Amino acid sequence: MRITALAGGVGGARFLRGLLDHLDSRPTDPSGGPHEVTVIGNTADDVTLHGLRICPDLDTVMYTLGGGIHPEQGWGRAGETFGVADELRAYGAEPQWFTLGDRDIATHLMRTRMLGLGYPLSSVTEALCARWQPGVRLLPMSDDPIETHVVIDDPEGEPADDGTPAVKAVHFQEWWVRLHAAVPARQILAVGIEQAKPAPGVLEAIADADVVVLPPSNPVVSIGTILAVPGLRDAIRATKAPVVGVSPIIGGAPVRGMADACLTAIGVETSAAAVADLYSDFLGGWLVAPGDADSKMPEGVTLKAVPLLMSDAEATAAIARAALDLATELR
Amino acid sequence: MRITALAGGVGGARFLRGLLDHLDSRPTDPSGGPHEVTVIGNTADDVTLHGLRICPDLDTVMYTLGGGIHPEQGWGRAGETFGVADELRAYGAEPQWFTLGDRDIATHLMRTRMLGLGYPLSSVTEALCARWQPGVRLLPMSDDPIETHVVIDDPEGEPADDGTPAVKAVHFQEWWVRLHAAVPARQILAVGIEQAKPAPGVLEAIADADVVVLPPSNPVVSIGTILAVPGLRDAIRATKAPVVGVSPIIGGAPVRGMADACLTAIGVETSAAAVADLYSDFLGGWLVAPGDADSKMPEGVTLKAVPLLMSDAEATAAIARAALDLATELR
Repeated sequence: MRITALAGGVGGARFLRGLLDHLDSRPTDPSGGPHEVTVIGNTADDVTLHGLRICPDLDTVMYTLGGGIHPEQGWGRAGETFGVADELRAYGAEPQWFTLGDRDIATHLMRTRMLGLGYPLSSVTEALCARWQPGVRLLPMSDDPIETHVVIDDPEGEPADDGTPAVKAVHFQEWWVRLHAAVPARQILAVGIEQAKPAPGVLEAIADADVVVLPPSNPVVSIGTILAVPGLRDAIRATKAPVVGVSPIIGGAPVRGMADACLTAIGVETSAAAVADLYSDFLGGWLVAPGDADSKMPEGVTLKAVPLLMSDAEATAAIARAALDLATELR
Repeated sequence: MRITALAGGVGGARFLRGLLDHLDSRPTDPSGGPHEVTVIGNTADDVTLHGLRICPDLDTVMYTLGGGIHPEQGWGRAGETFGVADELRAYGAEPQWFTLGDRDIATHLMRTRMLGLGYPLSSVTEALCARWQPGVRLLPMSDDPIETHVVIDDPEGEPADDGTPAVKAVHFQEWWVRLHAAVPARQILAVGIEQAKPAPGVLEAIADADVVVLPPSNPVVSIGTILAVPGLRDAIRATKAPVVGVSPIIGGAPVRGMADACLTAIGVETSAAAVADLYSDFLGGWLVAPGDADSKMPEGVTLKAVPLLMSDAEATAAIARAALDLATELR
């Protein structure tokens, strides 16, 4: 069975860990074939800091599935140290709101060096995964640089003549990490996305899939941005595979992260139904939490209510199983 | 008193520490003016590893004088950790014979980033020194990239038709660190030096000096390479300041390091007198160890014998004092 999943960072990675755990418990599909999981990872929160190219979502998936993740935190490396970061601070290096661990820096050094030599991000990611053996084929959504920027009010800027407050754009990471998404996002822009192409293998992985899965990743800045890569959404609309998704919203609040701040920015309600609506042009099945069982689904979307809290490995594997079962129903 | 010193790595840095300690004990010169020390640092053992631009000699001087050096080792940072290096090894990153510490990597990240933005090495060095406050003005000998390569036998190469064994060139660091200079150097080449220009301020620091000092640095790959920067040796010949040097050789062996392997490569005997000979066109005074007091000096060079082992801070300051006293005699 060929499973293709789109994924952002922590939430997506945890779901994928559960998916692999579930698949491990049934090593072949009903027809006796092996499972092949392809993950299309979000790269729009990538950022260059201290001269290092950092791909937070790809790394979170790679570390989580490869056994290197900080388990409680959900991002960054287990057993991390901060020798480099302490020194960068002593030099007064900016920005100081993003702290890179030493172990993590080694990954960024490898990536930055390979990119500098001209390798595309997809090749770099494959090379890094050769060490981590995540058990999936991890593809960046695009080899082209795409960066999410967030337009926020600029209290120090001059208001326009008509009184409109001044705004400024900051990198998504600055809004997310430094400002904790607490400053309202006036607009969320994926800079560079119009010119971007899907990375090699991405469209094929969607077209050839037996199931396409949307884990409970951020519907705006993770799944939403992946879908905005030219050609990608069309491929999902066109695939014969059922598309099933897991709601990132439970009872009107994000399971984790600050998806509500992103949904508000694009004028969408923070609810399981509203997120399903964003995917209504291709979504076949939608898993929601029991409390959201009365969500009104877009036409043609099959709703199923199951416990959605990824509280431990078993619970997470059960969600993944429910997603695959729903896909089987739809097939 | 304006003192200009040429310097390589560990030996030069330790001597300079002693020089500053000595000057601290007499905060003004005989005429009542302040001391100003300019150090022209060797950059020909610079190397790019893991995408990081590393300047071992400049950093050794900066860390030693700025209080960050690993005191016993003489290079690298005190309290160093190796989180990044362990991970790079796990990725199989080459080369594995050069281990970078985490604290040190922060310096290289700062430097690599600034060079990437177009700042010349002299500006980068000044920026790094703004943190370390080494108490000297530290100038790279050149802003242009110069790399010492060493020609060694290549046992895996095809011999020439006439039976001449095959050779290959390796970066100086590979010969020094990986091969411990134990493989004979057929030739030592400063690649790029013909096209290089002295960094801003270098020629002026020599012309305007009251004393020019050669610490006991490697006479081939440190002092020798600095002197080979076009215009630099001529400036030392032309300066009105006395030029005094400290022999890096005591009783036929290097005080530390593997200068003998370098001297052999250029066909020069490992002796205090033979090194003085290399500098005979500008040298005014030469400090040797008591056991070398009968060294035959080139014409016009005043020899003085004093204990030369930099065994502790006091002994090192005494050597620096002897060098300045010898310069005073010559003036």
